Amino acid sequence: MATAASAAASGVEISTITLSPVPLTTRPPQAVAAPCSRSRQRVSASCAAASPAAPDSFSAPITSANSTVVLRFGSIPPETLAEKRRGGNPRRAASAYFVTRSDNQGQATISRNGRVTPAQRHASRWLASFAGALARRDIDAAAHLFEAGGYWRDLVAFTWNIKTCEGQAEIKAMLAATLSAAQPSNFELQGPAASSDGAIEGWFSFETAAGRGVGHLRLKGRKCWTLLTALQELKGYEERSGPTREAGVEPGVLVDRRSWLERRQEEAAELGATRQPYCVIVGGGQGGIALAARLKRLQVPTIVVERNARAGDSWRKRYRSLCLHDPVWYDHLPYIPFPEHWPVFSPKDKIGDWLEMYANVMELDYWSSTECTSAKWDEEADEWLVKVKKIDRVLTLRPKHLVLATGMSGFPSMPEIPGAGSFKGRLVHSSRHDGGAAWSGKNCVVLGSNNSAHDIAADLWEHGAEVTMIQRSPTVVVRSELLMELAWGQLYSEAAVRAGITTELADLTVASVPFRLLPALQKPIYDEIRRRDAELYEGLEKAGFLFDMGEDGSGLHSIYLRRGAGYYIDVGASQMVIDGRIKLKSKVGVDALKENSVLLSDGTELPADLIVCATGYGSMNEWAAQLISREAADRVGKCWGLGSGTKYDPGPWVGELRNMWKPTQVPALWFHGGNLMQSRHYSLYLALQLKARMEGIPTPVYYLEPVHHPT
Amino acid sequence: MATAASAAASGVEISTITLSPVPLTTRPPQAVAAPCSRSRQRVSASCAAASPAAPDSFSAPITSANSTVVLRFGSIPPETLAEKRRGGNPRRAASAYFVTRSDNQGQATISRNGRVTPAQRHASRWLASFAGALARRDIDAAAHLFEAGGYWRDLVAFTWNIKTCEGQAEIKAMLAATLSAAQPSNFELQGPAASSDGAIEGWFSFETAAGRGVGHLRLKGRKCWTLLTALQELKGYEERSGPTREAGVEPGVLVDRRSWLERRQEEAAELGATRQPYCVIVGGGQGGIALAARLKRLQVPTIVVERNARAGDSWRKRYRSLCLHDPVWYDHLPYIPFPEHWPVFSPKDKIGDWLEMYANVMELDYWSSTECTSAKWDEEADEWLVKVKKIDRVLTLRPKHLVLATGMSGFPSMPEIPGAGSFKGRLVHSSRHDGGAAWSGKNCVVLGSNNSAHDIAADLWEHGAEVTMIQRSPTVVVRSELLMELAWGQLYSEAAVRAGITTELADLTVASVPFRLLPALQKPIYDEIRRRDAELYEGLEKAGFLFDMGEDGSGLHSIYLRRGAGYYIDVGASQMVIDGRIKLKSKVGVDALKENSVLLSDGTELPADLIVCATGYGSMNEWAAQLISREAADRVGKCWGLGSGTKYDPGPWVGELRNMWKPTQVPALWFHGGNLMQSRHYSLYLALQLKARMEGIPTPVYYLEPVHHPT
Repeated sequence: MATAASAAASGVEISTITLSPVPLTTRPPQAVAAPCSRSRQRVSASCAAASPAAPDSFSAPITSANSTVVLRFGSIPPETLAEKRRGGNPRRAASAYFVTRSDNQGQATISRNGRVTPAQRHASRWLASFAGALARRDIDAAAHLFEAGGYWRDLVAFTWNIKTCEGQAEIKAMLAATLSAAQPSNFELQGPAASSDGAIEGWFSFETAAGRGVGHLRLKGRKCWTLLTALQELKGYEERSGPTREAGVEPGVLVDRRSWLERRQEEAAELGATRQPYCVIVGGGQGGIALAARLKRLQVPTIVVERNARAGDSWRKRYRSLCLHDPVWYDHLPYIPFPEHWPVFSPKDKIGDWLEMYANVMELDYWSSTECTSAKWDEEADEWLVKVKKIDRVLTLRPKHLVLATGMSGFPSMPEIPGAGSFKGRLVHSSRHDGGAAWSGKNCVVLGSNNSAHDIAADLWEHGAEVTMIQRSPTVVVRSELLMELAWGQLYSEAAVRAGITTELADLTVASVPFRLLPALQKPIYDEIRRRDAELYEGLEKAGFLFDMGEDGSGLHSIYLRRGAGYYIDVGASQMVIDGRIKLKSKVGVDALKENSVLLSDGTELPADLIVCATGYGSMNEWAAQLISREAADRVGKCWGLGSGTKYDPGPWVGELRNMWKPTQVPALWFHGGNLMQSRHYSLYLALQLKARMEGIPTPVYYLEPVHHPT
Repeated sequence: MATAASAAASGVEISTITLSPVPLTTRPPQAVAAPCSRSRQRVSASCAAASPAAPDSFSAPITSANSTVVLRFGSIPPETLAEKRRGGNPRRAASAYFVTRSDNQGQATISRNGRVTPAQRHASRWLASFAGALARRDIDAAAHLFEAGGYWRDLVAFTWNIKTCEGQAEIKAMLAATLSAAQPSNFELQGPAASSDGAIEGWFSFETAAGRGVGHLRLKGRKCWTLLTALQELKGYEERSGPTREAGVEPGVLVDRRSWLERRQEEAAELGATRQPYCVIVGGGQGGIALAARLKRLQVPTIVVERNARAGDSWRKRYRSLCLHDPVWYDHLPYIPFPEHWPVFSPKDKIGDWLEMYANVMELDYWSSTECTSAKWDEEADEWLVKVKKIDRVLTLRPKHLVLATGMSGFPSMPEIPGAGSFKGRLVHSSRHDGGAAWSGKNCVVLGSNNSAHDIAADLWEHGAEVTMIQRSPTVVVRSELLMELAWGQLYSEAAVRAGITTELADLTVASVPFRLLPALQKPIYDEIRRRDAELYEGLEKAGFLFDMGEDGSGLHSIYLRRGAGYYIDVGASQMVIDGRIKLKSKVGVDALKENSVLLSDGTELPADLIVCATGYGSMNEWAAQLISREAADRVGKCWGLGSGTKYDPGPWVGELRNMWKPTQVPALWFHGGNLMQSRHYSLYLALQLKARMEGIPTPVYYLEPVHHPT
């Protein structure tokens, strides 16, 4: 950024140019007395005359608080000057600059961004009005900048919660409750705003009293359709990274200097023994690991408690043929992305090894071979009593916060089948199934028709078993390739990487879409998938396979958010069902087991040496019931699901995933989980909530969701 | 890239514009009969009229082979058209396009790069002339494009060697020997060329018969001052990465499909047992690991043999206080860079853990706790017999190639001191010294005055020991901070990262400077360091410490290349020497040891409980002597050093590091090593040489260096 100091040095005055009528945004409220008028303000701005090219941005003092900013170039950028000499139009050249920010000290930042597009001007204008209204604490004005049914999704920035406000009334209520504490300021458009599908979209940065955030706006006409505000870091507690990274070596002389290893070993030995962790995370899968990594970087003392012997075992121990169903671009952990040669779909053991490496390199206090046996809130001490069994010792940890990151797949859901006791074969939940190698020539029955069921059935068949899949209800089936092309491609793909869409940007883009709008936005994708793969679906239909694209046709992502299950991302098994290599019995349930067979509800009897129950997992708060108490679990209520009123996702509508990554009705109890993308992205918001509490930063929570569906 | 097809669709003819007189470059020789004339060629080029903005590049047919290319815009880019409507100058707009490439099919690529700078035009022109001369196999013309004393450094692209040709005669000789096999083509300027210090610099890409390369040119006037050509990949054997990465899961049905883990375990079990590795690397430090990682990605079966129990132990086992003296930006390994929060100077145990993680994640066949006991070339079988002791088993491996990556610090150099047998204290090489903790209140003597000597002396003092440093000869001393600011900063720093200088680009920039030119380029930096830190140097002088900036004042990087030692990167111990906390005896040697003391050559007797010999390491080819034979070591000759004729780097001048990363006089024997930067960058060229040999790609080696200084 060139300084404004050298006007005298150059002093070539070309003209007084109206840049763009961007009102001042974040003046202190008392200074913004007059309503926006069009009276002009003269600003003397200059850039270093010696600069070899027109600068990308420079700053200038702004002496009045009124609306239209007029820049008078005391010395114009050399490029502009050159243009004039060539007979070009300096007005046009100068109009490539526009005010992107003004701060409380009356300093404006003037940036250059090619030419100012109408979208840019539009977004700047809206953001400035919005920032002005917030600065004036004018809640009505702020709310009226939204469409009547507009959305504001806040991730911990205003609400210290994860909350979508739907419509002006909810926005007003939220602002009334949060604005004076949040003290938002310094809104600044980031990058070019763009027009797409009749809406104008743009990114911006902003600050609150406690931290710095990033936002996204989507305008329709002059009103905001959707707004995202997401806290990114806490002031004074920024992660040290890049230019602020640690030196690693302390120069000069230190008596009894300890090496990194000694410090690390001491810390590890103390934590949980002589020093209590601030936070205990139960479950060391990707969720627990990603969160612990963020907490480590934020210097929140944390212990991860994991039953398995090694980090990554939660993946290693699953069925042999498992590969991630989400592509690599979707799966990065924070801080250390997968290398460029990483396969698109990570094999389970490879992802297991990566998690183990990651826990080590990120210096997590990861207690493997350790089981959490119970947790109890100690009212007097204001902390949890967490009992853990660490190999042969029983310890009590006393953290201030307890996070259950036992995963969506942590609590196997095993059906109770009459006669199970008399069954002489192997009856096993999919999470305990080893693989097909031992079952060549045997009769195998797979209960269920989602991802695991298909993978396991295919693997059994590939090993020479006779396999029958029992399907009770419809499954969303989408071919992996088409899903990548039509659903992931824009944000999570090699093409997206080339287009400069970082993982963080992709995550925030996903976050910018309110859950209410998602089904309608997703449906056309699945309509197109159905059209393109008509042959596949016809084949499935002929085979008697029950499939749909969800009750409302909104497809896989919706059903994942509603139920966390209910789909198969096809990598070949659907064709095996069509071919009859995997036999299918659909619209039936299992009535009973006999010594060597399965009795179905339609009267069929299937011989069976192996029965794999790919019947999914229980709600995450079953862990709260088991570790804490049924009463605590009931106070928390259902985890996951949006309240869409579709199957397994009963209403009322809550607009966010229930109890995930945000305060629950049980103080200091948190739930973390989901796929790798969610573990990556939402761990940030959970970590910031915990860090703020540790540092005594006020975290007034707006709107703790009432509990629905306690059991 | 817009196609040239739509001239008819738009058909707006503006003018005939002379773009830049870039001759055709890579026409087959027979087509380039006439000498370069200025006769113009008319080319009809167009771009899609519907394109929303002027395209960055498009292609056009070129119908004659002569020099000046004139583009006639059948339809001009919309931006140009718009400019005309606004009264602008289409000639100027069109001149933003220039020919960057022309291929053998008479197709030119026309690119836009803002405005064509004179530097750009200049570099394009030179490169085109050069490419033309090579295409015509006109060696004289090619050589005359260089200054009389110009340089051409080739990394495996033309020479299948690492070789700098100095002056036109050497360039001619090299071209005469290599050109017909190399078949260079498709030279294409990459990115903008820039003018600096009177020279014009630019990057380009090119191809050879075997592969694709990147190059760098530095022009003075019309002649080339320095040229770099560096092979980057072999055609048909490109690493799968990014868009070509593997799927990880094979869709469809495979009977007896093996999981990633099963395949990996099988491969690991077979290699060295039922299947011989193509390559064995002795030494699993950063050098062996980086090379093995590249070979893994290139699918060259390789076993790394490492004596220590764990990857990274070569760092872990060094003295307790050690941190890397090079900053993090210089230290990345290939494929997996350190994360953003990594400290600037990695503590030794942290780098050890990283190497261990890396070897695992990169799926190396890394045999730890395994010692190579001997290696012998089997003439008949055309392979090595490498004996290794793997815990309790003795095995013979039969690789086609043997790489000694035992490191510059692999062979401790221990002085023979009369009376050492009678010394009752601890006498230890720095590589075996544990740390200061045990030596509080004891008398300690450190022999040597380089990095390790200073680090160890400071650590001993910090633990309460009495320490005396014995300095025999001058040391280059530079404060770490100044080194970072003045020597590394441009290429390896946070600022460089922000400026878009990737690690690869930084490495290639370093590689683009011929070793002959380095001292003169480096001297001003060290003059400035000496000026800025005058107080430090004055203090050292007063303390009697012998220091210089190398014999010719060219500083640390030069002395590292010449000797691999001779310097201290000051992180605080120099001040301790100045203060007398670390006592100093300089200009003396050790004459003898007595029971409890050291006798110095000036007659002083120092009481001593501990003597640490920070006396450096022997030549890498001592390993060849020990593992293979003295005769083989003598055939190889000295490793490392440039032949600068300075101390420990006897002439003759060879212009490259002797025997490093390139063919030696012993066939199929290779040396790999150096710091992390060299391990990273040069492992690429060594890996490509090995891969080419494995695939039977002809690799005619140009100029195998005669052996100097065999023992």
